[in-house]
Amino acid sequence: MPEVGEDVRFGPPVYRPGKIICIGLNFRDHAIETGAPIPQEPIIFFKATSAICGPNDDVIIPKNSVKTDWEVELAVVIGKKASYIEESQASEYIAGYMLHNDYSEREFQIERGGQWVKGKSCDTFAPLGPYLVTPDEAGDVNNLNMWLKVNGQMMQDSSTGQMIFKVPFLVHYLSQFMTLHPGDIISTGTPHGVGLGFKPPVYLKAGDVVELGIEGLGSSTQKAVAYQ
Amino acid sequence: MPEVGEDVRFGPPVYRPGKIICIGLNFRDHAIETGAPIPQEPIIFFKATSAICGPNDDVIIPKNSVKTDWEVELAVVIGKKASYIEESQASEYIAGYMLHNDYSEREFQIERGGQWVKGKSCDTFAPLGPYLVTPDEAGDVNNLNMWLKVNGQMMQDSSTGQMIFKVPFLVHYLSQFMTLHPGDIISTGTPHGVGLGFKPPVYLKAGDVVELGIEGLGSSTQKAVAYQ
Repeated sequence: MPEVGEDVRFGPPVYRPGKIICIGLNFRDHAIETGAPIPQEPIIFFKATSAICGPNDDVIIPKNSVKTDWEVELAVVIGKKASYIEESQASEYIAGYMLHNDYSEREFQIERGGQWVKGKSCDTFAPLGPYLVTPDEAGDVNNLNMWLKVNGQMMQDSSTGQMIFKVPFLVHYLSQFMTLHPGDIISTGTPHGVGLGFKPPVYLKAGDVVELGIEGLGSSTQKAVAYQ
Repeated sequence: MPEVGEDVRFGPPVYRPGKIICIGLNFRDHAIETGAPIPQEPIIFFKATSAICGPNDDVIIPKNSVKTDWEVELAVVIGKKASYIEESQASEYIAGYMLHNDYSEREFQIERGGQWVKGKSCDTFAPLGPYLVTPDEAGDVNNLNMWLKVNGQMMQDSSTGQMIFKVPFLVHYLSQFMTLHPGDIISTGTPHGVGLGFKPPVYLKAGDVVELGIEGLGSSTQKAVAYQ
């Protein structure tokens, strides 16, 4: 086995999960920066699993994209089939946690009609990992620092403690609408500091370097490249 | 092999596809019945693949559901990896076609905040088949009768010819936002006659029988049952 270093590519920690469920506007200050009201119950959307890549793979700016944006998120991986479970049972259904950058093309997401998936599902828009961290190792996931830098500049600097809806509630809530299967991913939302929220907005261009991390879950780096 | 009959269950014609992409409001008269504007470009949303079941399996009315509705749809199955393809090339990427009932819980979909997936992804909400019909057998898929009955009464009676955005355009369009992989499903929208459109609305209750079909793609029957 080669040693882990620059020459070794990490793949994503999960293989062909059935679904990626994302929670929208789950941090109060992020809802405010996007101009959206604070949600009364979780907003959910799906991201295509074909968007998954390794934690340090290049992020490909799609053809005709002018608004590719970042979102550091805590992702939950389901470990056991979950249907109509109580919030108090949620921990039994969680295999672990990982870092996720929920890349988003804001023009595709918001200005092209209808739902959000158009801007959430582009190839390489879901770098996962580097690790799947088990619950015993992760500790209290409601109190982890999370951050994201672009070209060395801190853009997002927050804590999972700022989430409106917490992990156990989210697992319970989602299980009322669909069965969660082992490997399914719940990405729990992003804090303040996405490109869309700046005045004027700031989006990625080829050559930009995005680094992100969550306390205890490791860090990842993606270089933005143009579609070729 | 047993003969196909009442004692043989048909499974869905595709196994663990990566994604189900649905086209919203793709029939003019359906957009009007829901009170929505006619879309300027396709509206897309995802349905969880965990909702897939066989064509004649029972449809389970979710716990706490009061607005379970039906939608007969033509589903396209992708046969070859498709990224940024032209409309004129679309036929090369299609493995075949099948019947789909895009079951929808309207309260979950529309009244619970945010995006539509909450009402589209419940278990058994995607009965597929009975067949995957290859393009040479399906003929001109832009001119197929499609219908749906509830307890013997005709509710939807239309043609795929009424679609606003046609199949080749949809394959092209979607491939601009994400790579389509073999097995991926595109469900192309439903015509006028869903329960939501009646005044007052009509929704399914346990014991109701839903039958549907598309010319050349066969028919399917689902009995509505309460969650137990």
